[in-house]
Amino acid sequence: MSERNENIDSITLHHEHSGKIEITSSVEVNTEQDLSVVYTPGVSEVCKAITKDETKANTLTARGNMIAVITDGTAVLGLGDIGPKAAIPVMEGKSILFKQLANVDAFPISLDTKDTEAIISIIKALQPNFAGINLEDIAAPRCFEIEKRLIDELDIPVFHDDQHGTAIVVLAALINALKVVQKESDYAKIIINGAGSAGIAIAKLLLEAGYKDITLVSLEGVLNKAETWMNKAQQNIASCTNPDDQKGTLDDVIQNADVFIGVSGPKALTEAHVRSMNDDPIIFALANPTPEIYPEEAVGAGAAIVGTGRSDYPNQINNLLAFPGIFRGVLDAHANEITTDMKIAAAKAIADTIEEEQLTPDFVIPHALNPHVAHEVAGAVKHHAKNGEKVLI
Amino acid sequence: MSERNENIDSITLHHEHSGKIEITSSVEVNTEQDLSVVYTPGVSEVCKAITKDETKANTLTARGNMIAVITDGTAVLGLGDIGPKAAIPVMEGKSILFKQLANVDAFPISLDTKDTEAIISIIKALQPNFAGINLEDIAAPRCFEIEKRLIDELDIPVFHDDQHGTAIVVLAALINALKVVQKESDYAKIIINGAGSAGIAIAKLLLEAGYKDITLVSLEGVLNKAETWMNKAQQNIASCTNPDDQKGTLDDVIQNADVFIGVSGPKALTEAHVRSMNDDPIIFALANPTPEIYPEEAVGAGAAIVGTGRSDYPNQINNLLAFPGIFRGVLDAHANEITTDMKIAAAKAIADTIEEEQLTPDFVIPHALNPHVAHEVAGAVKHHAKNGEKVLI
Repeated sequence: MSERNENIDSITLHHEHSGKIEITSSVEVNTEQDLSVVYTPGVSEVCKAITKDETKANTLTARGNMIAVITDGTAVLGLGDIGPKAAIPVMEGKSILFKQLANVDAFPISLDTKDTEAIISIIKALQPNFAGINLEDIAAPRCFEIEKRLIDELDIPVFHDDQHGTAIVVLAALINALKVVQKESDYAKIIINGAGSAGIAIAKLLLEAGYKDITLVSLEGVLNKAETWMNKAQQNIASCTNPDDQKGTLDDVIQNADVFIGVSGPKALTEAHVRSMNDDPIIFALANPTPEIYPEEAVGAGAAIVGTGRSDYPNQINNLLAFPGIFRGVLDAHANEITTDMKIAAAKAIADTIEEEQLTPDFVIPHALNPHVAHEVAGAVKHHAKNGEKVLI
Repeated sequence: MSERNENIDSITLHHEHSGKIEITSSVEVNTEQDLSVVYTPGVSEVCKAITKDETKANTLTARGNMIAVITDGTAVLGLGDIGPKAAIPVMEGKSILFKQLANVDAFPISLDTKDTEAIISIIKALQPNFAGINLEDIAAPRCFEIEKRLIDELDIPVFHDDQHGTAIVVLAALINALKVVQKESDYAKIIINGAGSAGIAIAKLLLEAGYKDITLVSLEGVLNKAETWMNKAQQNIASCTNPDDQKGTLDDVIQNADVFIGVSGPKALTEAHVRSMNDDPIIFALANPTPEIYPEEAVGAGAAIVGTGRSDYPNQINNLLAFPGIFRGVLDAHANEITTDMKIAAAKAIADTIEEEQLTPDFVIPHALNPHVAHEVAGAVKHHAKNGEKVLI
């Protein structure tokens, strides 16, 4: 099927269904007796029960299973700052995937403000309705401040999917890809092209997971602690990556690399780049919809394993392998944060859904819609939740 | 069924279902092909279409049929300021009634702020996601400022249900009740007990609908333009009501009244009050769940017609006769405001669902769950929408 037909279909489908979500009732209201129980006067007893004990909102309302998928529309897919209304189709897409894969109720919210303080205060005011916040497609570096402040100031888990969802699935794919090419994670030279929210989060999670030789590259050049053009988040990650103290551009650092992880833009990686890498290079070209390099070109230039963000190529490195199970896990655990341990456990759970003897260069990551993945991830996340220390209120 | 059992059932029901709403998908995602159409990469074409033409968000996303039911939890039912979490069961109740009676998707939002400016700016920032705003259970006088500002500053219809929903259904019931007792609307002496948001809105709508002899009473006393204790909204309504320039308390003005409309509190009206009214008095005792006077007491004291807010007595004056159809009508009309004409048309449509020969003292208003009412209201509202002058964007 051509990309053109696919796109026409997508608009037609969205038009025919008037979008993708509905607010439906989980109880029936057919009689006046039903009405008196779900609404007045009976509902006042339910309100009073929550007034007495606020935690009851998690069991007597939809809150305990309800999260918000929140964006400001400033960094949507590969499209950039397209505004809040144009971002809604992506948020609705996440919403229905949360429901289908993990039975999480997820309401999409596109905010008509780009002001960091405004976004933070709005989400704080929305907290009574949700047991978790999935931040989505918010531009860097604003997204770091927003996530950090919300994690500090809210009593519910906050997760910027573009950072951590991507990082978790990349780690999962990398674990399996290194097995296929029989390289050790300790010695793999990893280049992350793109030093925005996703690139930095990938670097952080790989470091936490024990990877040692990681270098980030932005449009301005290689992240090196001596550079002065970096923003604060880039300075921080530069101080604990780039072990060989390299400078320059992608052209300089891609040579002899084992792994390329692209979270940058279309066509950022050339066949010449791939040919300059070590034997059996692993290429994760995640720019979407147009990857840093198309798989056929990468393989032609010697890539052993290629992953993209697209569903129409093998090894789709898709956040949806992570986010539904992550939130299912924290909701089930009544956890109020998503820790690094939980993220690494989620990545390992995703990787482990493929048994070692099933791994091939075209199958290092489970299919995006594999219905078992979210269950495995949720179990791993719940297991690593710090129950008892902090409880969702 | 006793009130006690009813209440236990309500908590059990809410607990068993974990609240009353779900976010569900209106499209299926079973294959990678489905995924590429509802999500990446196909969804980017849908985003681009909205970037080009923002109004497409109303047809390509759920927005065109999506409203928010928003409260700050400060004036919930008869319970008062119970906070945002405790208000959720009421908002969820409205949400499922919107869906069931008028196929409107309604998402409940309880805000954790009581600050007028904060509430206004939050709702403005939420505008991309909704085609209408139903304000709910926000205390007076803050609710007036919030509604007024939002009507001025948003491009979508805003409706404070406690004011206008109540006023519309009261007007509908009054139209039919006066027919039953064969009194003329022009000469009916009407007392509204309670000069908060609902009382003032009822007075305004009755004035707009042609009623002339209306007097409001608050806990502080009769609203009279000479009084100095009134807030701004009360001063405004006092200047065009109370034609006989009465002063004092309910005890003074209830004598020789034809209609008592209570939007105040439990037991505010005594049997002696009812006995002091004109022949065939009409009593709408809307405090909920405990009315100003119980119907059996009012009838015992001579009331011809009694309505309450409760579903377990005849003549339930329930906002749900209005709000689903109102929003269905404005959404269908792509209207960006709810005008007085539309409100009066809605009231007449509700009243007209009962044919004159079917009217009895116990049946002046259709049953709350009558499935035809919302359809009739929606049609009347749509008919009175100023199409072409202002279009929902």
